[in-house]
Amino acid sequence: MSNIWGMNLKVSIFGESHGECVGVVISNLPAGIRLDLEAIQAELNRRKPGKSALETPRKEDDAFKIMSGYFNEYTTGAPLAMIIENTNTKSKDYGDIKQMPRPGHADYTAYMKYKGFHDYRGGGHFSGRLTAGIVFAGAVAKQILSKLGISIGAVIESVGMVADERIDSLIVTEAQLEAWRTSAFPVVHPEKGAAMRQLIEDMRVDHNSVGGVIRCIGLNIPVGLGEPFFDSFESRLAYMLFSIPAVKGVAFGLGFDVAKLDGKQANDDFYMDGGLFKTKTNNAGGILGGITNGMPLDVQVAFKPTPSIGQEQQTVNVETLEEKTIAIEGRHDACIIPRAVPVVEAAMAITLLDLLLGEEKDVSWW
Amino acid sequence: MSNIWGMNLKVSIFGESHGECVGVVISNLPAGIRLDLEAIQAELNRRKPGKSALETPRKEDDAFKIMSGYFNEYTTGAPLAMIIENTNTKSKDYGDIKQMPRPGHADYTAYMKYKGFHDYRGGGHFSGRLTAGIVFAGAVAKQILSKLGISIGAVIESVGMVADERIDSLIVTEAQLEAWRTSAFPVVHPEKGAAMRQLIEDMRVDHNSVGGVIRCIGLNIPVGLGEPFFDSFESRLAYMLFSIPAVKGVAFGLGFDVAKLDGKQANDDFYMDGGLFKTKTNNAGGILGGITNGMPLDVQVAFKPTPSIGQEQQTVNVETLEEKTIAIEGRHDACIIPRAVPVVEAAMAITLLDLLLGEEKDVSWW
Amino acid sequence: MSNIWGMNLKVSIFGESHGECVGVVISNLPAGIRLDLEAIQAELNRRKPGKSALETPRKEDDAFKIMSGYFNEYTTGAPLAMIIENTNTKSKDYGDIKQMPRPGHADYTAYMKYKGFHDYRGGGHFSGRLTAGIVFAGAVAKQILSKLGISIGAVIESVGMVADERIDSLIVTEAQLEAWRTSAFPVVHPEKGAAMRQLIEDMRVDHNSVGGVIRCIGLNIPVGLGEPFFDSFESRLAYMLFSIPAVKGVAFGLGFDVAKLDGKQANDDFYMDGGLFKTKTNNAGGILGGITNGMPLDVQVAFKPTPSIGQEQQTVNVETLEEKTIAIEGRHDACIIPRAVPVVEAAMAITLLDLLLGEEKDVSWW
Amino acid sequence: MSNIWGMNLKVSIFGESHGECVGVVISNLPAGIRLDLEAIQAELNRRKPGKSALETPRKEDDAFKIMSGYFNEYTTGAPLAMIIENTNTKSKDYGDIKQMPRPGHADYTAYMKYKGFHDYRGGGHFSGRLTAGIVFAGAVAKQILSKLGISIGAVIESVGMVADERIDSLIVTEAQLEAWRTSAFPVVHPEKGAAMRQLIEDMRVDHNSVGGVIRCIGLNIPVGLGEPFFDSFESRLAYMLFSIPAVKGVAFGLGFDVAKLDGKQANDDFYMDGGLFKTKTNNAGGILGGITNGMPLDVQVAFKPTPSIGQEQQTVNVETLEEKTIAIEGRHDACIIPRAVPVVEAAMAITLLDLLLGEEKDVSWW
Repeated sequence: MSNIWGMNLKVSIFGESHGECVGVVISNLPAGIRLDLEAIQAELNRRKPGKSALETPRKEDDAFKIMSGYFNEYTTGAPLAMIIENTNTKSKDYGDIKQMPRPGHADYTAYMKYKGFHDYRGGGHFSGRLTAGIVFAGAVAKQILSKLGISIGAVIESVGMVADERIDSLIVTEAQLEAWRTSAFPVVHPEKGAAMRQLIEDMRVDHNSVGGVIRCIGLNIPVGLGEPFFDSFESRLAYMLFSIPAVKGVAFGLGFDVAKLDGKQANDDFYMDGGLFKTKTNNAGGILGGITNGMPLDVQVAFKPTPSIGQEQQTVNVETLEEKTIAIEGRHDACIIPRAVPVVEAAMAITLLDLLLGEEKDVSWW
Repeated sequence: MSNIWGMNLKVSIFGESHGECVGVVISNLPAGIRLDLEAIQAELNRRKPGKSALETPRKEDDAFKIMSGYFNEYTTGAPLAMIIENTNTKSKDYGDIKQMPRPGHADYTAYMKYKGFHDYRGGGHFSGRLTAGIVFAGAVAKQILSKLGISIGAVIESVGMVADERIDSLIVTEAQLEAWRTSAFPVVHPEKGAAMRQLIEDMRVDHNSVGGVIRCIGLNIPVGLGEPFFDSFESRLAYMLFSIPAVKGVAFGLGFDVAKLDGKQANDDFYMDGGLFKTKTNNAGGILGGITNGMPLDVQVAFKPTPSIGQEQQTVNVETLEEKTIAIEGRHDACIIPRAVPVVEAAMAITLLDLLLGEEKDVSWW
Repeated sequence: MSNIWGMNLKVSIFGESHGECVGVVISNLPAGIRLDLEAIQAELNRRKPGKSALETPRKEDDAFKIMSGYFNEYTTGAPLAMIIENTNTKSKDYGDIKQMPRPGHADYTAYMKYKGFHDYRGGGHFSGRLTAGIVFAGAVAKQILSKLGISIGAVIESVGMVADERIDSLIVTEAQLEAWRTSAFPVVHPEKGAAMRQLIEDMRVDHNSVGGVIRCIGLNIPVGLGEPFFDSFESRLAYMLFSIPAVKGVAFGLGFDVAKLDGKQANDDFYMDGGLFKTKTNNAGGILGGITNGMPLDVQVAFKPTPSIGQEQQTVNVETLEEKTIAIEGRHDACIIPRAVPVVEAAMAITLLDLLLGEEKDVSWW
Repeated sequence: MSNIWGMNLKVSIFGESHGECVGVVISNLPAGIRLDLEAIQAELNRRKPGKSALETPRKEDDAFKIMSGYFNEYTTGAPLAMIIENTNTKSKDYGDIKQMPRPGHADYTAYMKYKGFHDYRGGGHFSGRLTAGIVFAGAVAKQILSKLGISIGAVIESVGMVADERIDSLIVTEAQLEAWRTSAFPVVHPEKGAAMRQLIEDMRVDHNSVGGVIRCIGLNIPVGLGEPFFDSFESRLAYMLFSIPAVKGVAFGLGFDVAKLDGKQANDDFYMDGGLFKTKTNNAGGILGGITNGMPLDVQVAFKPTPSIGQEQQTVNVETLEEKTIAIEGRHDACIIPRAVPVVEAAMAITLLDLLLGEEKDVSWW
């Protein structure tokens, strides 16, 4: 199994949900970046479980410990390694899970691929808990990107059938992104947020779960990140996003709706705005020919419902091949969407930094 | 600019629309694969322009020439290199395009990223013509995959607002895939196909264009391809798909619709079917935890409308910074969807072969 | 700074000499490998400091802790992460080292490349202590390779001007390799070993140091590992070996001496030996055309003297640019050769496993 | 089989000795580099066969044709692809070679690895002719490096037992490198060169061959290229060099001789020279801790004798397993050293450019 992502920056995650720790090693970071550790912890806190009644009651401090690459408050240029120890792991018998794959989970495919040797406790290496490493790397990336003026923020677009209004990416401000980042449940219209939360609570009570869509916006993006084949900005960001557990769809700009339009509607006309080259609309989500065009980055990410539900489901014992029913007990999120928001932001931040590090700053001297 | 895709198989494309050629080098192919060159040419013919009134009238034979890696009818194990010479390149003055970026095209971002040195003639390296190399690689991959019983076929799901019925991936047969592959305009219901073709013709007459959605299905997929972080099957296939020009969305199984469901609806229950482990539904599109589960692969790909349209659009001269209007003349597809079908199939085939080559065939001896 | 090596297996090391730990993450290991943890610790003990009067008196237990990828005594297929905490780090003031680069050390180049932000304490990330991660990975690799019958062992060929006899790789047995592996100072002729040890002791007393050459042999190597361009077996192994601190030369088979021969002398004639295809001599060191030929692997590795010496040397203060003299105090090896023996073996083991994992076991089914 | 080298720059070669062509694709080259095509051809001419009586009488123009990535005299940023067609391929029956592996050649290992499907004619993909692609890439790299003031040149250090004087890298000038580059047989002392040439001629008459050592020097090297683990400058350059056919040893600075010294002798003391940080000696060959220190790069490369000799040798028919004798007829170099000189230079140039492209030009703005 691989665990490494990136062309210039390398992000490699390791760990298991119920093992010693989850962690990440980030290599090719520049030396001399002063890290704000509290801001990093704040990002991890956005993702950590147990913050509200909507979430799994598993409580984890998610306190990180830097193991290398950091000295006297600055990055050293050497690999930045971090671990978060697992403290709240229940020592129950997970033997059932090993033989009784949960529908919608990786249990069956992991069993087959790793021949029964995988750590099946709580999802093991497949756990959403592994995304803590992505959030850490994203928090570091955000601190670097902010020096270039780049802002990233994500909003909940829908939970189940409850959809919020979709606002034009051209009117999203940095202040709006900041408001989303500091909200535990970022939405456009508070009443829609309330309806979404109620739906999640209903699902929780019903031992069920629900999916949703997160939209992420990036502002002040440099022109020129990405390439036509095969490292388009869409390709690189989708590559990262589709490794977040439960993600089943990724779309840029108008996304699937752009397929319904004609060219005259879909094309974004160019114009000059105070000396800046801009487009009048941003249907392309800030990317043309695989390359950022300086307009807001705009991506939608669809998550399936949390597969762990308490209702009865059909499965098959992988060893006896007998058909069985299971009801999953334990501490689960009825909806992963609120906790996934910082993970999606992190994916965009990491992708941007990876591509930025591959750009030459100035080749006028060639 | 990079041009290489793949972890085990490496596919690297090169060339320009109006330069000497387009081509591809495929490395890490096994030695001893007998290639059916006619079948490869047939795949290229599915993509080539000028086959019908719906398509650009630019005629190209798209006859390929193998330059290395092939000897006595078999692959040698050395890099398989192929070129297709450009024969029908009009020698008109492309100077306008260089300075007047076409809305929706890569002209502006390419100009900025490559500082005006890119080959702007006909889209240059950004041209959809580069996908001929992807189709070639996909055709080679399909021949290898077919020995394992794997079938791949794609169908047009919608063109503009005309949507065909979405059939359950569980009832798609190999014969159905074959029928799609041999159709110039594969759809589920012929009357829907007729409506789509009429829409494209209307757009062509109106100097406009239209987008659409292609769905690709894979059958007889081995269990175990892909990994959780960061090389999930979704990640790898989306990485390739998002480099196809005009692709703006990729979704697996139910795609964005899965976000509207609850967990009980979305989870695919397991059952035994004649000794085989299966799921009763295939909402996950054949992938759990990033790993193929043996059920049909099912992916949707959204294409934006062809950006080249004859109607007037607003742009800005990149050198003088004056705002201008342009109407793009020339030979363009009013809808790229029919020609993109084999490209999407090729992306799935290449992704499958890449991951298969990384699997150990048998580790019982460890 | 990158930290990842490997095409199939990925080995990534992190840590610093005087930070929290040194560690390694190994990805793409097969699942289901039973690890003998005591044997791994024994390999680490061969490298650890403070075992004899010849070595640095810094004592470290070098006790490793597995952080992920290991469950119920077997590898899980997930990334195998390991850390060794630094316990015996002296808290002296290292400020001098930062400004006064030690001749022969990385201090100056690290200062320039990382702009003074590197962790300079005890060499930081440049320390030979980082090779503990390589030895760990090598120990894991050796356990897998041993199941295929592959044996690896290294011998000290020379220390300073004291050279041992060079024995023909064709007469080296597995028992010989085992004897070398279990010796703290493996040589061919004990009296040569005694002379080498005396030389090291003399150097130590004189506050000086000395270099040497290690030769590593691999037996029962499968035919077919490596490729002509650019991943020849020589390329891959040299790539790893030249990252071991102090290595300045790598040569295969007869090495530099082969350049003095004519073709008739140098070529290894083929013959049949009990049904096996062999060569009468092994001047090529087991590699033809970049590919292993099944004969013993044979590589020589030249190490420069430990740059840390107590004698006065000339340097320049990197901040004031004043010329200065320094004498390096502290705990240093007068000769790194004995402790480098298991590191060289590890490099060969890792390289072999990396290439083996890229081989298909059986493609007769294509 | 892979064919790609590089972390930032990607060089991928393809082709066969007796197929359609040999070629190379270079990706990640900056856009806007004006190429001097005549200078590139001149580099290829240094390597091409048939220039003198010492070399194989096979005559090839080695005229290159750029297929993509070049427009209006400048690189476009898109992949730069080049082919050299094979014009002088003798159509003799190569069936013998397939079954009768030539000692010292890749015939046996290629047969085993590629199961008899490799193109065995004239060495196929294993042929030294493939290095034309490396020379092309090196010539492009040299043109870019020259804008930074970097000079590279190589000299023949020995042929067989005839060794030239080894001059101190500190006194080598750019003019000296230029003189070496423009000589068909670069040496320090002309009389040594005459003796080497006589030895080669003697070997040719005797149907034998001979090896040798090439030394390559680089001047005006930026400080800071390379990293400790695992991409040390030594690692990267050795990785490339060991893929050149017949290379069996690579060593930096004093090379294997440094292992004979004590630390006081080996360490290069620092001093200030007109405001520049320098070392009084250059035993390290311009590299400390895997990172260039600004002093001259200095590498030695040992080549084994050309394995193709007319004298009788022992082999085994790979299909019948009968022992046989063979005498290789045909057009071969009695010594590859003179033609390998530009290949070694190219390897250094490519390695330097690859690492330079990974460096940020200015991170003061972070």
